Amino acid sequence: MEAFSDGVFGFAMTLLVADLALGSGSSALQRVLHAWPQYVAYVVSFLTIGAAWLAHTALTDRLAQVDQLFLRLNLLVLLVVVFLPFPTRLVAHYLQNTSGERVYVTLYGLTLLAIRVAAFILGTYARHEHLYSPAKEGEEPRGTQLKILPSVILYVIAILIGLALPEVAVALYFGIAIYLVVPFRETARVLRRRHSSRR
Amino acid sequence: MEAFSDGVFGFAMTLLVADLALGSGSSALQRVLHAWPQYVAYVVSFLTIGAAWLAHTALTDRLAQVDQLFLRLNLLVLLVVVFLPFPTRLVAHYLQNTSGERVYVTLYGLTLLAIRVAAFILGTYARHEHLYSPAKEGEEPRGTQLKILPSVILYVIAILIGLALPEVAVALYFGIAIYLVVPFRETARVLRRRHSSRR
Amino acid sequence: MEAFSDGVFGFAMTLLVADLALGSGSSALQRVLHAWPQYVAYVVSFLTIGAAWLAHTALTDRLAQVDQLFLRLNLLVLLVVVFLPFPTRLVAHYLQNTSGERVYVTLYGLTLLAIRVAAFILGTYARHEHLYSPAKEGEEPRGTQLKILPSVILYVIAILIGLALPEVAVALYFGIAIYLVVPFRETARVLRRRHSSRR
Amino acid sequence: MEAFSDGVFGFAMTLLVADLALGSGSSALQRVLHAWPQYVAYVVSFLTIGAAWLAHTALTDRLAQVDQLFLRLNLLVLLVVVFLPFPTRLVAHYLQNTSGERVYVTLYGLTLLAIRVAAFILGTYARHEHLYSPAKEGEEPRGTQLKILPSVILYVIAILIGLALPEVAVALYFGIAIYLVVPFRETARVLRRRHSSRR
Repeated sequence: MEAFSDGVFGFAMTLLVADLALGSGSSALQRVLHAWPQYVAYVVSFLTIGAAWLAHTALTDRLAQVDQLFLRLNLLVLLVVVFLPFPTRLVAHYLQNTSGERVYVTLYGLTLLAIRVAAFILGTYARHEHLYSPAKEGEEPRGTQLKILPSVILYVIAILIGLALPEVAVALYFGIAIYLVVPFRETARVLRRRHSSRR
Repeated sequence: MEAFSDGVFGFAMTLLVADLALGSGSSALQRVLHAWPQYVAYVVSFLTIGAAWLAHTALTDRLAQVDQLFLRLNLLVLLVVVFLPFPTRLVAHYLQNTSGERVYVTLYGLTLLAIRVAAFILGTYARHEHLYSPAKEGEEPRGTQLKILPSVILYVIAILIGLALPEVAVALYFGIAIYLVVPFRETARVLRRRHSSRR
Repeated sequence: MEAFSDGVFGFAMTLLVADLALGSGSSALQRVLHAWPQYVAYVVSFLTIGAAWLAHTALTDRLAQVDQLFLRLNLLVLLVVVFLPFPTRLVAHYLQNTSGERVYVTLYGLTLLAIRVAAFILGTYARHEHLYSPAKEGEEPRGTQLKILPSVILYVIAILIGLALPEVAVALYFGIAIYLVVPFRETARVLRRRHSSRR
Repeated sequence: MEAFSDGVFGFAMTLLVADLALGSGSSALQRVLHAWPQYVAYVVSFLTIGAAWLAHTALTDRLAQVDQLFLRLNLLVLLVVVFLPFPTRLVAHYLQNTSGERVYVTLYGLTLLAIRVAAFILGTYARHEHLYSPAKEGEEPRGTQLKILPSVILYVIAILIGLALPEVAVALYFGIAIYLVVPFRETARVLRRRHSSRR
């Protein structure tokens, strides 16, 4: 189950780049630079899938067993993750296009939110059905899992803002992805250690 | 063999979304909403491949060994699964197109049926050649395997209906996919347990 | 190394179907049926990659160790396998196109031949450098490995015939793929056993 | 973590061939031959990702553990590797196009450089945080790892040359990829051994 899920996460990430194309412009440099909404969308989606993969790995590492319903809820997570390249493509190509961007950015935000919600349901089910190995059940939840609830709230706020200001919403999605991926406590620990060893 | 098959199932699922595109319409919202036959085809194909993966995993979990012929029959299953994105694309783009939809929906249904038949042949061969581990040979077949014969009959009926009413057939394929993926007994058990623990 | 190679083989197989498209014709049925050269090219390439995967798996199963040069020769095999979807696409779209088909069919045949030659080099290197596990070094080579030399000769003949009769060459490539994939001895054994158990 | 990374490396390699297309020309043979910049770009990118995979495998084989920050730095490596098919496509289609090739070749070179730099950061972090298994920490670094610093210098030189002579830069990228992939010491050892056994 893990190898299969890992493959799907990895493939969804790779598919994101298949859609990159040059922007418009009179020189080659302009065409490369004007494609910036695509780079932004690529990085945001890549990091969001990366964060979902990190949370998924943290979850499956703690599992002692899976049941039939868990396998199906896992398929639901993958269904939403695999869908992400489609709204990514829409945002990548229609950002700065005043007539449509609001709709596409909202669809994008809803998909990002759905990924978190599906991951949350999967984790909650695993806890309720006692699928975790006993040794790890008592463990303090890891950083990735602590961030699920705050990120859901942040996504809802960003989606609402995006109805008026789509480009601000994309910036917020970028910020949430960074927040989800960067392990603040670990980074602080490493930096502190490096600092104290220099003295 | 399992990692390879898992990879192919996962890629075939992910490839489905590579073909999603906006529908036609005067506003962005209409273009997103008018693409609904594509969403339906995406979800039906995703769930059908998901169900085939679940059945395949249940089968390979019980194997004690594989022989050369089993590996080839497995390639046959993958050949049909990997083909599915093509008729999915045809249904996605030509549903509601009165001149062609009947042909495409029938091709789609035949591919869905072929996936089940190939999976059935693989399972039957494994049983006849005693490839299952002895401990698991006596085991009661799991839900996924019990559903193979009913689903073959349902597909034949849906394909015949689709010759007259293609859109009804797609709705039936959706229903069969749900039937294949949802583990009714397990869900009932979980719901019963939750209910009794509340009292 | 095996998981990585398995992934690449599986992905190359799946990519083949991404290029399938309708043929031309006045009715939907004609458009589906006129795409037959694509179906042929898809099946031939799928079976050829399948046969290469079977040979690769048989080889890696017998390995006790790998060295740095083996890993690079393995990359060479993958380089050729991953290239196959390109000539497949050319044959699929230009078969029956009298001006170009000879060139494309020859490129296709050379790629099929290169896959066998690269696999042969990899196997020969593993044997010369004693990478096989001692227990398995003495083993009788399996069916897939016995077929490498005959298939190379058959490919050379088919490529030469294709210079004059491209469509005959494609039929021959199809025949070679079947020859490579079908395990004649095992099939005969299974059929004999079934026959004798009936008496 | 390894299976996931292996999958992403493999997908990125396979995606390269999805973009191959015929060149222009009056005959089929010319159209195949005129696509040579694409073949060059395909082989250079394939070998560069192959070299990155070899370095990554050599690194992960020596790991005793991973921490949360390592997993994120690994995502960074994958983010850059997965991006490579995009500049590859640009170089493949616009080489020999005097107006744009300089820009695209530079973007391509920067991506190749970024892959090496990201891999270097990952390896350095693993060493500083003592993630290697103690038994292997003392080991002499393997060929692939010894080549990281020289290759970074070579890339910087090639990128600077490419600002004036883009096609020379592509030839240099090809040379660097060969340098990264060919295991000179091992090859020499194998050749020496074969030579001495013949005498």
